[in-house]
Amino acid sequence: MSGDSFGRIFKVTTFGESHGPGLGGIVEGCPSGIDLDEDVIQKELDKRKPGQGPASTKRKESDKVRILSGIFEGKTTGTAIGFYIPNEDQRSRDYSRIKDVFRPGHGDITYNAKYGVRDYRGGGRSSGRETVSRVAAGAIAQEFLKTQGITLKACCVELGGIRAGFNADADIYDNPYACADPEVVPQWDKLVKEVRKNGDSLGGIVEVRAYNVPAGLGEPVFDKLDARIACALMSVGAVKGVEIGNGFEAARLRGSENNDSMVKGGFLSNNAGGILAGISSGQTIIARAAVKPIPSIARDQQTVSVNGEEIKINIGGRHDISAIPRIVPVLKAMLALVLTDMFLIQRSRG
Amino acid sequence: MSGDSFGRIFKVTTFGESHGPGLGGIVEGCPSGIDLDEDVIQKELDKRKPGQGPASTKRKESDKVRILSGIFEGKTTGTAIGFYIPNEDQRSRDYSRIKDVFRPGHGDITYNAKYGVRDYRGGGRSSGRETVSRVAAGAIAQEFLKTQGITLKACCVELGGIRAGFNADADIYDNPYACADPEVVPQWDKLVKEVRKNGDSLGGIVEVRAYNVPAGLGEPVFDKLDARIACALMSVGAVKGVEIGNGFEAARLRGSENNDSMVKGGFLSNNAGGILAGISSGQTIIARAAVKPIPSIARDQQTVSVNGEEIKINIGGRHDISAIPRIVPVLKAMLALVLTDMFLIQRSRG
Amino acid sequence: MSGDSFGRIFKVTTFGESHGPGLGGIVEGCPSGIDLDEDVIQKELDKRKPGQGPASTKRKESDKVRILSGIFEGKTTGTAIGFYIPNEDQRSRDYSRIKDVFRPGHGDITYNAKYGVRDYRGGGRSSGRETVSRVAAGAIAQEFLKTQGITLKACCVELGGIRAGFNADADIYDNPYACADPEVVPQWDKLVKEVRKNGDSLGGIVEVRAYNVPAGLGEPVFDKLDARIACALMSVGAVKGVEIGNGFEAARLRGSENNDSMVKGGFLSNNAGGILAGISSGQTIIARAAVKPIPSIARDQQTVSVNGEEIKINIGGRHDISAIPRIVPVLKAMLALVLTDMFLIQRSRG
Amino acid sequence: MSGDSFGRIFKVTTFGESHGPGLGGIVEGCPSGIDLDEDVIQKELDKRKPGQGPASTKRKESDKVRILSGIFEGKTTGTAIGFYIPNEDQRSRDYSRIKDVFRPGHGDITYNAKYGVRDYRGGGRSSGRETVSRVAAGAIAQEFLKTQGITLKACCVELGGIRAGFNADADIYDNPYACADPEVVPQWDKLVKEVRKNGDSLGGIVEVRAYNVPAGLGEPVFDKLDARIACALMSVGAVKGVEIGNGFEAARLRGSENNDSMVKGGFLSNNAGGILAGISSGQTIIARAAVKPIPSIARDQQTVSVNGEEIKINIGGRHDISAIPRIVPVLKAMLALVLTDMFLIQRSRG
Repeated sequence: MSGDSFGRIFKVTTFGESHGPGLGGIVEGCPSGIDLDEDVIQKELDKRKPGQGPASTKRKESDKVRILSGIFEGKTTGTAIGFYIPNEDQRSRDYSRIKDVFRPGHGDITYNAKYGVRDYRGGGRSSGRETVSRVAAGAIAQEFLKTQGITLKACCVELGGIRAGFNADADIYDNPYACADPEVVPQWDKLVKEVRKNGDSLGGIVEVRAYNVPAGLGEPVFDKLDARIACALMSVGAVKGVEIGNGFEAARLRGSENNDSMVKGGFLSNNAGGILAGISSGQTIIARAAVKPIPSIARDQQTVSVNGEEIKINIGGRHDISAIPRIVPVLKAMLALVLTDMFLIQRSRG
Repeated sequence: MSGDSFGRIFKVTTFGESHGPGLGGIVEGCPSGIDLDEDVIQKELDKRKPGQGPASTKRKESDKVRILSGIFEGKTTGTAIGFYIPNEDQRSRDYSRIKDVFRPGHGDITYNAKYGVRDYRGGGRSSGRETVSRVAAGAIAQEFLKTQGITLKACCVELGGIRAGFNADADIYDNPYACADPEVVPQWDKLVKEVRKNGDSLGGIVEVRAYNVPAGLGEPVFDKLDARIACALMSVGAVKGVEIGNGFEAARLRGSENNDSMVKGGFLSNNAGGILAGISSGQTIIARAAVKPIPSIARDQQTVSVNGEEIKINIGGRHDISAIPRIVPVLKAMLALVLTDMFLIQRSRG
Repeated sequence: MSGDSFGRIFKVTTFGESHGPGLGGIVEGCPSGIDLDEDVIQKELDKRKPGQGPASTKRKESDKVRILSGIFEGKTTGTAIGFYIPNEDQRSRDYSRIKDVFRPGHGDITYNAKYGVRDYRGGGRSSGRETVSRVAAGAIAQEFLKTQGITLKACCVELGGIRAGFNADADIYDNPYACADPEVVPQWDKLVKEVRKNGDSLGGIVEVRAYNVPAGLGEPVFDKLDARIACALMSVGAVKGVEIGNGFEAARLRGSENNDSMVKGGFLSNNAGGILAGISSGQTIIARAAVKPIPSIARDQQTVSVNGEEIKINIGGRHDISAIPRIVPVLKAMLALVLTDMFLIQRSRG
Repeated sequence: MSGDSFGRIFKVTTFGESHGPGLGGIVEGCPSGIDLDEDVIQKELDKRKPGQGPASTKRKESDKVRILSGIFEGKTTGTAIGFYIPNEDQRSRDYSRIKDVFRPGHGDITYNAKYGVRDYRGGGRSSGRETVSRVAAGAIAQEFLKTQGITLKACCVELGGIRAGFNADADIYDNPYACADPEVVPQWDKLVKEVRKNGDSLGGIVEVRAYNVPAGLGEPVFDKLDARIACALMSVGAVKGVEIGNGFEAARLRGSENNDSMVKGGFLSNNAGGILAGISSGQTIIARAAVKPIPSIARDQQTVSVNGEEIKINIGGRHDISAIPRIVPVLKAMLALVLTDMFLIQRSRG
């Protein structure tokens, strides 16, 4: 109800802010007997760690996860899995610059309206740091999905308007942009340098795919698989759009172009992104999320103070200039959460 | 869990298929004392009735709603509101043509995979007819929102790739496309005629806005207002993409371009679509949904039978050639459901 | 959230009041392929029909159910099952006697406090008539449970302080009290006559059992099987207490007396009522509900009017003098709903 | 869904076992601006600490709570409150005695059936230690309720069959049984000594009351206030029965005796326990829970091993001989959780 939970059978509930003691969560509904240890989760967390490339902040966050329950002798017990990631590097800073100011593009003004108070040291629950708990939970989900032969892949397919291809086999971590298209990396490098020099920031598009998903996942009407995916991806801060399969392009095609024809053994195309009438078809699930540019920029911006005075603000400091690549494992985690939940719901049908 | 419910405090649960006795639903959580009668709901239902323009089927469905509970002396009592819409015009047809065939772009194959059975007479729960219950529930939500000064408007802003403007003041029902831009109507008319002649179908984009929404609606993390809207709109059959504010365009802008600057009394732009960090900012809420072309087309399509044989199918008959305009009140209803629910959740904070 | 839904995977949502057009509900999550028709539901509804014995009202309610969706060719399709039971015998009565008065023991005063309005013609949603929807949904649940070999039995085991035995094999409908103990029936007959003559009413205790329930149902912590049963039974109007196994008696035993010893093949006793640590043990599930006397009595009672004036009220008329036997199928239905839901949740574990 | 969450708007989700690193939880939906620090929670936790009387284990558990999020400058921020209580005193014991045995009256056999595995070192999630998280969450709820003038009191009113009075003003911690009736304490003392000597254990009854609860809390039909309380109390391990107001006694009274008459300014009695038709009436809320004797006893018991062999087991060691008094703050916490949640739901009505 308060929005800290996601999922029904496989459910994650999270807590934590960027400037408190730490962050964590509880994963419920994970079947028993799944191999799990902290390393598996850590590996995913490390993919969203800062300080890994030219688009990233130089802040150090080691993000060491600790499992607090639900594991016995290296396997899940079937009961609630608690996990915790302490905050580090919370240097005692001077917050006077932002304490009484609503940063443009941030949740400062809306949190203030909602709660009457806000933790001005970071974004509170709206901080991107909140996503560590998503990644941790998603790592657990991915371990379960693996036991069913289901795997996921996420790549950045557009940065600052420059497109890149999706490649299921590429190592996206041989470059600092989670890019699967080596020819595009130098163009992105050049763009990132320019934008950083200008004190500005960049958006992009991330594509997430899931392979070997059985047909039949997703519920009719309100809990369609695509509706759940849209909710999951749009719930990640900075995401402003979500599409499935050919998405917005479908709006411009004729039915004869957009329909995926079927032959013995499968489909001739996958415009639908693996989902028909809200239910998985057995084809690869394909979703894309539009990520807005980081709102914290090292340029003067027009805004107002808590008291309503008009002022200029320049948010320099240790910020990423794009949520990419750090958002990539987050979006993959969200898709994993949806699929695991929908898989278990469908399995209840017997 | 089974996906027939939407919302938490203001919650709708629906039932019904295109070829059963009828459809309906239950609205829970509507505050007491709201003026409500069948006419208010009927007026919204009439907007999605078929047979209203060149893009629509000629099927007759009078869609007369009956309120079964929750109203006393013309006002809501605060308890569950049951409503029912009987099916009509179910002429005893010959279904042998589609009984054993999976129609491309439809849920036939996925429902079969999910349930092992399916009602081959229509799409069952995947039928577009399911949306009558959404519209009825959304009409009740809109009555509540009105008491808070909140109003909604939806227009078709693109059909078959041809864009149209959004106009809050236009009468979108003076043309058969829910179009607010009179100059574009003749172009759409021409396109629709061509496409119908070719036995093909069209997609488009619908924009929905909500005015006078107070700041503070939406929950942090998973139940962000935009996540709930994405879920709501994507749960409507035929929708393949959702965006908030400038949406996918945001991915191509710099932070300095995308951030909405603030001055005394408000914002200088609304790229964010009225939502910051998942919480309403007090600006107009703006969302868009990409609608795929109707998959039932009067052309030969390659598909397979239930038994796996490859065959051709031509789905002539009384079909719409676009989900537009009939989907327009459905998407508006979904936004109304989200806002009412989020409004009541926020009000619980006191 | 508004309390009209029960269950998670197997979920029922209901609507309707005693003096509106009718009552009904929606059952979600019923697996596909289960034999179901209106007769199966009607048979259960007939067990709670009024006018069946000396303790019952002479009101006529035929309670004819109609299935509106979710069934195709005599089997469930796996999608939402809508059902409807129109009200009858709503004679245009004079409500002036109770319109402005809070009846003692009724929800008049609390509904007024909660909603600011109330439908004074009946109890609105607090009317016992609301339970028809529970019985209908429970009948569907029992059809599913049968396919798993699980059966239920409910008997009245105490009326007005006079105990009766539980007998799984007895025909409880060969007497007007749902009593499985023929020797007690004459004593209850005598008591009922006396009490009716005095214009008073009676309470009692109902025991519900479920046979052949597999071990493993129920979730740790908050969704223990006994917690769900307690919630289910206590949610029925007039129930003031619930116990599992030997219940309150357990509070007076020593551990050595209360523990159920185990031997090869099973347990030596069933004090636990088939539930250990919130999870079914494979033994028979045993629950009891304490039912208060009907508050509407044909005697002068001290109360206040809506305006706060002290007055006397005598509620003669066509009332039951005990919720027994009509509450018996309702409580059985509630246990069936819990077990079906918990069964499906457990099955999701694979 | 997996039962680790309780509540809708004010929701707690917990994790942790007796033999893992620690236990904790997440409280969602607590309004902002409530004074809260670790001391307030610690004070409640200390009431369930072991080692406090003749009926308690001598195990040392300091149960120090740490708040991990949701608090800023001594007040709640309105976002998720994470808390953690590390386990201590987990001496490296020899578990070979119980590793392969199903302890009578425990969840060993049912957890095994449910999950296929179990953590044999303690009861896993069925351990009474799980209740620390309930107490912590309940302490937060009680802080909120206090701001509304609502207070709670719980007493043990029966131990081993010997009754004691309830007294709202008594200091129940001046004796080791949470007893409000000083004359009964010596009798309980004597009984406890005898039972301990015999290696046996005791059950009892706890009564919980809430004062100054406004009329109007609770939802019709399935989420009646009493249904939610029944669920809450029965979800605590060892509870086998729950009653509201005069509870099971109501089943033996006539309507004329059981109805609470009303006069100007209130009711003449409170048989209903403050709840009419599932909604609070403004009177004191009264609930009782029957607590079974601790199943771990220092006497030979007949049971079976994991492999199905019949064996004797004697569970000596550091066990409580009654869940009383340690269960008393747990049950009070559960009532606080229900009331806070229902209060916030009702407040959403405006």
